[in-house]
Amino acid sequence: MTWQDYLDREQPRFVDELLEFIRIPSVSAKPENMADVRRAADWVAARLTAAGAENAEVLPTAGHPVVCADWLHAGADRPTILIYGHFDVQPAEPFDLWTTPPFDPQVRDGRVWGRGASDDKGGMLIPILAFEAILRSQGSLPVNVKFFFEGQEEIGSPDLPPFVAAQANRLKANMIFSADGLQWAPDQPLVLEGLKGLVSLEITLRGPRSDQHSGLHGGGIANPALALAQVLAGLKAPDGTVLVNGFYDDVLPLTEADRAAIARIPYDEAAYLAETGAPAAVGEPGYSTRERLWARPTLDVNGLTSGWQGAGTKTVLPAEARAKITCRLVATQSPERVFAAIRDHVLAHLPPGVTAEVTQNPGRADPFLLPPGHNATAIAGNVLRQVYGREPYRTRMGGSIPVMTTLLEHLGVHGVMFGFSHDDENLHAPDEFFRLDAFRRGQTAYGKLFEALGSAG
Amino acid sequence: MTWQDYLDREQPRFVDELLEFIRIPSVSAKPENMADVRRAADWVAARLTAAGAENAEVLPTAGHPVVCADWLHAGADRPTILIYGHFDVQPAEPFDLWTTPPFDPQVRDGRVWGRGASDDKGGMLIPILAFEAILRSQGSLPVNVKFFFEGQEEIGSPDLPPFVAAQANRLKANMIFSADGLQWAPDQPLVLEGLKGLVSLEITLRGPRSDQHSGLHGGGIANPALALAQVLAGLKAPDGTVLVNGFYDDVLPLTEADRAAIARIPYDEAAYLAETGAPAAVGEPGYSTRERLWARPTLDVNGLTSGWQGAGTKTVLPAEARAKITCRLVATQSPERVFAAIRDHVLAHLPPGVTAEVTQNPGRADPFLLPPGHNATAIAGNVLRQVYGREPYRTRMGGSIPVMTTLLEHLGVHGVMFGFSHDDENLHAPDEFFRLDAFRRGQTAYGKLFEALGSAG
Repeated sequence: MTWQDYLDREQPRFVDELLEFIRIPSVSAKPENMADVRRAADWVAARLTAAGAENAEVLPTAGHPVVCADWLHAGADRPTILIYGHFDVQPAEPFDLWTTPPFDPQVRDGRVWGRGASDDKGGMLIPILAFEAILRSQGSLPVNVKFFFEGQEEIGSPDLPPFVAAQANRLKANMIFSADGLQWAPDQPLVLEGLKGLVSLEITLRGPRSDQHSGLHGGGIANPALALAQVLAGLKAPDGTVLVNGFYDDVLPLTEADRAAIARIPYDEAAYLAETGAPAAVGEPGYSTRERLWARPTLDVNGLTSGWQGAGTKTVLPAEARAKITCRLVATQSPERVFAAIRDHVLAHLPPGVTAEVTQNPGRADPFLLPPGHNATAIAGNVLRQVYGREPYRTRMGGSIPVMTTLLEHLGVHGVMFGFSHDDENLHAPDEFFRLDAFRRGQTAYGKLFEALGSAG
Repeated sequence: MTWQDYLDREQPRFVDELLEFIRIPSVSAKPENMADVRRAADWVAARLTAAGAENAEVLPTAGHPVVCADWLHAGADRPTILIYGHFDVQPAEPFDLWTTPPFDPQVRDGRVWGRGASDDKGGMLIPILAFEAILRSQGSLPVNVKFFFEGQEEIGSPDLPPFVAAQANRLKANMIFSADGLQWAPDQPLVLEGLKGLVSLEITLRGPRSDQHSGLHGGGIANPALALAQVLAGLKAPDGTVLVNGFYDDVLPLTEADRAAIARIPYDEAAYLAETGAPAAVGEPGYSTRERLWARPTLDVNGLTSGWQGAGTKTVLPAEARAKITCRLVATQSPERVFAAIRDHVLAHLPPGVTAEVTQNPGRADPFLLPPGHNATAIAGNVLRQVYGREPYRTRMGGSIPVMTTLLEHLGVHGVMFGFSHDDENLHAPDEFFRLDAFRRGQTAYGKLFEALGSAG
């Protein structure tokens, strides 16, 4: 039997396994789901063993665990590849916006609906299934394979750097492929040449000791919620320009070639707005929407908290107000320098009558840019061309996968995104889904990638 | 037995009754406490009957009920007075900041600690107890008395205007006294000559249809949380000046006499800051802290809500952001005109890429200013001078009691604040308390008020 026949025959079981995997609510951001993340790790280790991988182990970090496994019998003359993915998921709130419950996945319209279906449970299962198909049908693989799956990607992988540093030998590989990644569209492949970095921070402003009566104290003392609004309005102008002193200092200007590569990819702004539901595309003047999304640094407020948030009126002057902020960074910005610039800017522009605390949250990533002509990228591009019958687009994108920079730093290898999600699949939002045809096509693509790497070796 | 002896003898029972009253969590703002507000109404009606009042009834409104009772046997040549108070309380959140649970009241250091102890359960019991003491010890009262207690003051009394209009005959009186009110200090009485009005509103900004991945969409579309910050920063400058077009149009300028009356009252800004814990007094330039607190209009943000508010990082671009706002108004501002001014200002200064909804929340009050030389005020001032042995201060203050304007409109009578709370009693905040000596002194004051009104009649 060919490995393709094996994949066809086992597909119903694979879909059932994906549903079983999604049922584990492995939300890494929520302390109450700690045990579920661990349960997902155990599930992954067992699934790797069932696929024929060896040495499957759940390994501890200071936070959520890592799962490693390998199959190293292709011979010393063949390359060793490391496959990365993550088994943790984003929080599913607000639950009431889901058509069907996030952790009770459903198959509907050729799609699997549930939290993590696309990001990244469906994605990280794909290489395991391709690996199993070749091993079970052929008895061996043409490349040595290492698996490396983490449980804290959605909180920025805070414990991965020391783990990777300590386990560099176990993870050592000639090439790295990330099963957490996007294709352009169901009929259009993509080779991703860069990802943004990330810095996460929190601003807390405090006024009175406790919440005060707005009638007795309003007008007498500063209002921390209003002061927070003034501070945030000072960070970014309505036109999208970041106003923080020094924010753009380390940004490499886009070259004419960079801009031309982006412009070559078809873009329909009306369709983009219809997809997101936003009334208009807005951002930094002088750059196209695509350039801003893919190749310019951003500053977003992720959350606001202050005072009374229930129904109706509570006439309170709140004691404090908090904002969560993340910036996406481009080469050669550094998360620590950008954090320091924002902190200094906030403290220098603080309205009177409040005190400020600006703290960096866990989760950081350096921007990641592949060197031109990178070998693994060329091989991945060829496989995608075969599988899709179309030339892949080549560009950078706006997401961040911090572990890619960590792997580069400790293993000296640039990872390649080789994933089969799409950006319309409600990643990080209600009604996340994964396309079953992409799930199947991804398995073929990974099978062909293993073959191509084996013959290239 | 004199009525004073009766009060002394029954004081332990009265304190127990206050504790029992506070144990009913009659939070008018929270739908889940609807039945508790009703339970508090039943408790008040039963307590009025036990005191000797007649016709005690729980009367429906479109929202929380009203309790009315009367005793009209003093004779037609004696005045009829209406006594007002409220049996609903503010929400008690955040619970973890209370030293002892808000609805399990404790007596400690000569004070009763619990939600509503001061505002207004302790306050509204006082006239009932004074009424009982005179009736039980003397067999009758020197004035005709009507009681009028509501259950929605803390949400701005939205259903009171139609109720008062419909029940104007039942409520008709020669003078009105509010048992919801403050004294300056335990040893210094106060005659309050004015209260601020109130308008409550909510601003909701919307961007994308649902929360989006900040890496995939940040920089491409507007961020509603940031846009909200920009809108709020446009409403009020860091120096405290309200920037809304037309906001100050209907404000009567402070006269030199007004300013002198305020300046006559001792003020220690360091003590004020120590009381609130605020790092500085901040507000509209050109006015003293007292003038701002008591006699200038204010704009406060009561709450902010957007995106991810849990622990750590969620890299989300939120679909919407909301702010709750209240303004305290002074003569002759109108809640509806100020609401319209803010709404128009927000819509005229909306950042690109978001849509806005600006809605007026229930709860509104016109500013309330007593006419100079008002008779009931003079009588109340005399009683306070006797009971405290000191000349009362006379000023306006920053709170709002919407029903006072409603009563003025429908009964044609200016109400007088005659309450015994103090503004350091953590009204609307954790660890609310009421002084037991003020509780006792208030009963004496109401007894003497009844006598003074009877002989004045």
